[in-house]
Amino acid sequence: MIVDEDTAHQLGIPDGFSRRKVPRDRDLVISLGGDGTLLTAARAVRDGTEILGVNLGTLGFLTGVSKRQIRSLVVDAIEGKFDRDVRRLLEISVGEKGRPLRRYRVLNDAVLNRGALSRIARFTLLFDGSPFSSMRADGLIISSPTGSTAYNLSAGGPLLHPHVQGFIVTPICPHALTHRPIVLPAGKTLEVSFEAGTAEGIYLTLDGQEGFRLPSGSFVRAGVARRTVTLLRRPRSGYFETLSEKLNWGV
Amino acid sequence: MIVDEDTAHQLGIPDGFSRRKVPRDRDLVISLGGDGTLLTAARAVRDGTEILGVNLGTLGFLTGVSKRQIRSLVVDAIEGKFDRDVRRLLEISVGEKGRPLRRYRVLNDAVLNRGALSRIARFTLLFDGSPFSSMRADGLIISSPTGSTAYNLSAGGPLLHPHVQGFIVTPICPHALTHRPIVLPAGKTLEVSFEAGTAEGIYLTLDGQEGFRLPSGSFVRAGVARRTVTLLRRPRSGYFETLSEKLNWGV
Amino acid sequence: MIVDEDTAHQLGIPDGFSRRKVPRDRDLVISLGGDGTLLTAARAVRDGTEILGVNLGTLGFLTGVSKRQIRSLVVDAIEGKFDRDVRRLLEISVGEKGRPLRRYRVLNDAVLNRGALSRIARFTLLFDGSPFSSMRADGLIISSPTGSTAYNLSAGGPLLHPHVQGFIVTPICPHALTHRPIVLPAGKTLEVSFEAGTAEGIYLTLDGQEGFRLPSGSFVRAGVARRTVTLLRRPRSGYFETLSEKLNWGV
Amino acid sequence: MIVDEDTAHQLGIPDGFSRRKVPRDRDLVISLGGDGTLLTAARAVRDGTEILGVNLGTLGFLTGVSKRQIRSLVVDAIEGKFDRDVRRLLEISVGEKGRPLRRYRVLNDAVLNRGALSRIARFTLLFDGSPFSSMRADGLIISSPTGSTAYNLSAGGPLLHPHVQGFIVTPICPHALTHRPIVLPAGKTLEVSFEAGTAEGIYLTLDGQEGFRLPSGSFVRAGVARRTVTLLRRPRSGYFETLSEKLNWGV
Repeated sequence: MIVDEDTAHQLGIPDGFSRRKVPRDRDLVISLGGDGTLLTAARAVRDGTEILGVNLGTLGFLTGVSKRQIRSLVVDAIEGKFDRDVRRLLEISVGEKGRPLRRYRVLNDAVLNRGALSRIARFTLLFDGSPFSSMRADGLIISSPTGSTAYNLSAGGPLLHPHVQGFIVTPICPHALTHRPIVLPAGKTLEVSFEAGTAEGIYLTLDGQEGFRLPSGSFVRAGVARRTVTLLRRPRSGYFETLSEKLNWGV
Repeated sequence: MIVDEDTAHQLGIPDGFSRRKVPRDRDLVISLGGDGTLLTAARAVRDGTEILGVNLGTLGFLTGVSKRQIRSLVVDAIEGKFDRDVRRLLEISVGEKGRPLRRYRVLNDAVLNRGALSRIARFTLLFDGSPFSSMRADGLIISSPTGSTAYNLSAGGPLLHPHVQGFIVTPICPHALTHRPIVLPAGKTLEVSFEAGTAEGIYLTLDGQEGFRLPSGSFVRAGVARRTVTLLRRPRSGYFETLSEKLNWGV
Repeated sequence: MIVDEDTAHQLGIPDGFSRRKVPRDRDLVISLGGDGTLLTAARAVRDGTEILGVNLGTLGFLTGVSKRQIRSLVVDAIEGKFDRDVRRLLEISVGEKGRPLRRYRVLNDAVLNRGALSRIARFTLLFDGSPFSSMRADGLIISSPTGSTAYNLSAGGPLLHPHVQGFIVTPICPHALTHRPIVLPAGKTLEVSFEAGTAEGIYLTLDGQEGFRLPSGSFVRAGVARRTVTLLRRPRSGYFETLSEKLNWGV
Repeated sequence: MIVDEDTAHQLGIPDGFSRRKVPRDRDLVISLGGDGTLLTAARAVRDGTEILGVNLGTLGFLTGVSKRQIRSLVVDAIEGKFDRDVRRLLEISVGEKGRPLRRYRVLNDAVLNRGALSRIARFTLLFDGSPFSSMRADGLIISSPTGSTAYNLSAGGPLLHPHVQGFIVTPICPHALTHRPIVLPAGKTLEVSFEAGTAEGIYLTLDGQEGFRLPSGSFVRAGVARRTVTLLRRPRSGYFETLSEKLNWGV
């Protein structure tokens, strides 16, 4: 078992790996923290890695296992005492002049939004190469089914069951009342270009954690990635149980 | 070419078929009217039938071809001048004591709702056999991607691209503010049981056209059907063009 | 102290008054039950009557005092141990051919809606005699500030602080996405006429309790009434405390 | 007649006044431009000034008079050919340690929001000195009835008729689904304090035009101002006519 730098530091252990580059030879990652910690891990591991999300505080959408002895968690994982829940990531690329330049993956969402003091921006959307919508809005949320319970929900988007092969585009405070969240299928690509209302520009935020300003004239492409992560969960603590508990649905 | 009873009557032709039982040996159905006429046809034809929706008035979501000579429409259809847009129906069954008794298909939606003078009802939902949600609401809309632009939208549901393999459950005026529309995947079944607030009971309406009171103690099952219809459309008059025009999206 | 018929029956007392006609010489009415019981009382008492809402189960928006000995509640009321919270009712009248025929008062809301198997209806609204909106919808909620936490909230309407001199009109599942709840000022009258989609007609429901079918061709007028009721409340259990507790706002 | 600096420059006239300090001895201000130009004027004039909003392009919510000869507009204004529509402003103050330091007036709205790359912020609200709500959100819109058709509407807030004596607080993308827009009465003050999610802080924007970063630890107070402006409008081009035209309500 190896640990990341931060954990190493806390434990007084000499070496740890960077959280952004989880060593690729590992089959199981244990994420100790909240949903945010697990999101960071999910972006950093190789395809298909199993992640056990252990919450150190309250139940999260992704971190349903409560803190116990690490040793017993590992034993349970090895002995197959957890259910396996495969989640697909989104693939996001940023480019200019028709060419993708940088590529990212997110488990929850990619958000484009204007600066705090900017005026409303204009976003132009193509899906599978066809013009689709042009809207003035504060921003756009491109969310996976996994991310549908996060920022998307605050902006009025629907829940997507994790097995739906698709993703959702939810406008943030659209100027026109007729613009609504739309669910798009996997296998095709959404392309977003934009005009910022002012020089302040448009920002891209990945999983609510990493953000930067987009170059003027650039575009963002998004679609369902081939890459998956496998969340380990307590048996009988599935998707709907977590929804009910987190959203107070009271089955 | 054969015509239905109503059209036969209007044309002074002696024989016509019932709109509810379109003869099964036909490859192409031309629906003259609005979206409602096409919905009736879609429920009545066999798997895979091609339907050409000709609107007699304003553009519909499903009826994008404007009225012309029937002869020229048929020629165009035969010569392959239309694009083919395959849509899956939903399969709805109503049963009692665990046994489905009657089966229906809808192209748009199935709606459960309370009577005008009833109190709020309680709906209990299972998905793939697992308890999922229990909510007090005026009703529930179970909508296909095709139906997502209809009643679902009025009740706050999202748009679903027709290629998304799934369906959506949207509560109508839910009592708790945390109940939200949810998109569920194809391949599994939703089951809804209910307690009506009063003796007036709960009603089921299919495609906004056929409705009846559900027996007390019954359940409704819903899922994506294998059956499809194929809508013929003008080239370059696809999904997003219609959305933009109908919803004033102004690409 | 006198009691109503139902309570009299339960207590084995010979005489009780009808809940619909609370004797006009009483200064204080104690409502034992939930919000529904208090709504019935509020419609039945004369202007300015004090009502003490005692909940027999869970906290309500209107019934914040928990069950205790009636004697001690009466003593507390007389000794001024409760805060007084004045609420204005809405005045609703139903008429035909320009003439109001029947008049009602509600504390929460008046709801116009279509029958379960009817198609969408069309409502035409005038405010202070001026045409204001024409919309297709399942129904309309006309709510007082007091009623804004009830059905209005489920249909997407805003909260109105009880001191706002106005009322709110919230469409239920409007066909057009641009129709939104609107708050109108006290002192002027809203008039609603309608076309039902089918012969089933349009229904009017008062405070979620009394309902009937509206005559075809009739109209409904609504505005803030002069009449008030005074709710007695525990000190430091005001409007925002109840909101926070009922809506989980967690101050 | 005198003109502002910008207009003076365009006309080649030597002197003009600053748009931020409209001379106080003027009875009528003619605003040539869009709603934005009129908002700037409204903040700059003395109490009760009449403003004639002339749109140079499309109809605005505030600028309903189309461009004509200035001379004829002035003649019409003097001859009383316009209707007078009195609108109240909001008074906004920013302070620290319990003391208001700077005071602003807005015709539409004051918006608090987080920076583009910040995490969600926490806002704590008091009304008339009482704790009212604590919420995590991207921001808060404090809107007058006049501003209810602007940003408030995009964030899901209701319309407020201009005669309603109150203002509205609408959360932007609140974290909890139970937080909703709330209408508060005139005569009392709302106080908002905040914790920014990150060092980037919280920004205040006035009428969508002037913005700045709020000092850490500061508060914002808001309420209906005594000050009014009087909008001149074409007869029979009132509130509802503009709503219908701008929102496509099709009376």
